[in-house]
Amino acid sequence: MKTYIQKKQMLIALLVIISSLAVLSFINGNGIKKASAADPLPSWNDGLLKSSIIDYVQKATTANSKGFIPVEDRIATFDNDGTLWAEEPTIELEYAKLAFKKMIKKNPSLAQQQPYKAIIQKDKAYLATVDESTLAAAILKSLSGTTEEEFEKSVKAYFDTVHYVIQKKIHPVIDARYQPQLELLDYLRSNGFKTFICTGGTIEFVRSISVKYYGIPSEQVIGTKLQYKFDEDSRTILREGKIASICDKGGKPVNIQWHIGKIPVFASGNEKSGGDIEMLKYSQMSKYPSFQLLVNHDDAVREFAYQEKNNASINAAMVNKWHVVSMKNDWKTIFSTP
Amino acid sequence: MKTYIQKKQMLIALLVIISSLAVLSFINGNGIKKASAADPLPSWNDGLLKSSIIDYVQKATTANSKGFIPVEDRIATFDNDGTLWAEEPTIELEYAKLAFKKMIKKNPSLAQQQPYKAIIQKDKAYLATVDESTLAAAILKSLSGTTEEEFEKSVKAYFDTVHYVIQKKIHPVIDARYQPQLELLDYLRSNGFKTFICTGGTIEFVRSISVKYYGIPSEQVIGTKLQYKFDEDSRTILREGKIASICDKGGKPVNIQWHIGKIPVFASGNEKSGGDIEMLKYSQMSKYPSFQLLVNHDDAVREFAYQEKNNASINAAMVNKWHVVSMKNDWKTIFSTP
Repeated sequence: MKTYIQKKQMLIALLVIISSLAVLSFINGNGIKKASAADPLPSWNDGLLKSSIIDYVQKATTANSKGFIPVEDRIATFDNDGTLWAEEPTIELEYAKLAFKKMIKKNPSLAQQQPYKAIIQKDKAYLATVDESTLAAAILKSLSGTTEEEFEKSVKAYFDTVHYVIQKKIHPVIDARYQPQLELLDYLRSNGFKTFICTGGTIEFVRSISVKYYGIPSEQVIGTKLQYKFDEDSRTILREGKIASICDKGGKPVNIQWHIGKIPVFASGNEKSGGDIEMLKYSQMSKYPSFQLLVNHDDAVREFAYQEKNNASINAAMVNKWHVVSMKNDWKTIFSTP
Repeated sequence: MKTYIQKKQMLIALLVIISSLAVLSFINGNGIKKASAADPLPSWNDGLLKSSIIDYVQKATTANSKGFIPVEDRIATFDNDGTLWAEEPTIELEYAKLAFKKMIKKNPSLAQQQPYKAIIQKDKAYLATVDESTLAAAILKSLSGTTEEEFEKSVKAYFDTVHYVIQKKIHPVIDARYQPQLELLDYLRSNGFKTFICTGGTIEFVRSISVKYYGIPSEQVIGTKLQYKFDEDSRTILREGKIASICDKGGKPVNIQWHIGKIPVFASGNEKSGGDIEMLKYSQMSKYPSFQLLVNHDDAVREFAYQEKNNASINAAMVNKWHVVSMKNDWKTIFSTP
């Protein structure tokens, strides 16, 4: 299991947690149209990408078409952060930050112990040299021993009370969803596709909003798994404060195999960390015609413009002929803000 | 992960593999009736158990009833071996036995190496003293490096060619299914329940027949997970020859949490190894009215009569007021043999 604990990712997560950035502003597009039969994707600008999606779906659902896919094999997987909702800041890490503060409040002596002390005091010198696994263990400790019921309550409270600033206005977190992707999920489902989330986030965090935010039931959420044990006395699942499997990079195909057992014919991710490359590559191995959709965050005005250091995701898209969404050019509307 | 590798279970598995028992006879009941609207469970004898099932389902689906369950929470989990099909001999272990023989045929020098030598020569003295993990590793090695596609082909060939002896007649393996349980699965589904398999068997083995045998899609099969890696060059999932998580005993609730994220309201298992006790206990923690169904193998004439050494499953059923199926008294027909 050790191979799954990708310590580097935990460090990145922690660095986000400890960098107490002011909440970034989301800049929002205007008016959201309801999808109509005439145009199933009203928030997508007309053009090659939109027509490619529609063409693919039409062929997949037309018997005797070369692109036909039997309904049971119409499996679509979507990354979440940066693909279905905004990830600046990453919503789960905002939650983790609060959970961390609560843990220290409950046990103030932690504030004098490392690595907690360094985290609170933003001691960059210490944090630069500390073993990554020490930091990862500190974060995970905050989740240890909780029951799923307690966790669900805590997350629900978070989503009920925390707000996001979008276009300098306060919004509920739900408004950080991308409207064009909501339409795409609906469009795929109305054509017999089974839509799954395949997220690097922890599975229960995303499940807590998957039905309300995306119309995706909890059993269709694939994500990073925490290690559990079944406690015989209380008959509940307890968190052991360890990660069982990280659902990122090569971990995405592995978790898809465990969960679905089929190669997705439609897969969507985004550039930022390179975390979706393997899922998109895997999708391309389907025996059916497949569709890979990579979201490029290139809209500095309405959302953000960020790029991977090595540009790996966009490069992979070019080499492998994946479809790239230019948020700037392909999306008429960005957010689902009403 | 180490905690999940329950070595004892691997030993039990191996002992079954090496005991080259003649194929046991399945004794089959008569005529299979199709379920009708009047009687959704025609292969169940009328009585308290049958009426309890029907009463539970009717209340679960009646709005304003005290027992009503929203459709999205109508989650049912069924064990497979001994619950949905016969387990004397265990069908997956019959497959493993063949895979093992093939491995030695491909690499005959293995036959001179331990523990393979002892297995072939049925060297009980060696096998009684060897470290269990050595044996487990030997079995798992036979699955290492295979792609899922190769495995699927191999399993398909197995189910297409291997036969079972039922009532002294040769039958395809499919006939080892329990007809009353097939009717129960259908009945639950026609009332909005989502049916899952939760098996101690390896997930891909059971998936290979889940649609055809039980009408359950691959994404609704939960089972023992093998450790995989995504191979970047071939873009395929490779088996690493290790177990990631055993879906038995306390591993069943854990795997249900990972896969579904909800407590099943209906759970069915069987007595033999005590492997379903935790799943049934967990199901009882649902906030909705729940139903636990334990199959008791007490029909020496039409199936088998076997009992756990410590009788733990039946005792747990008594203490926790679970429903116990007496195969002898409650089932009019046992097998799905046409």
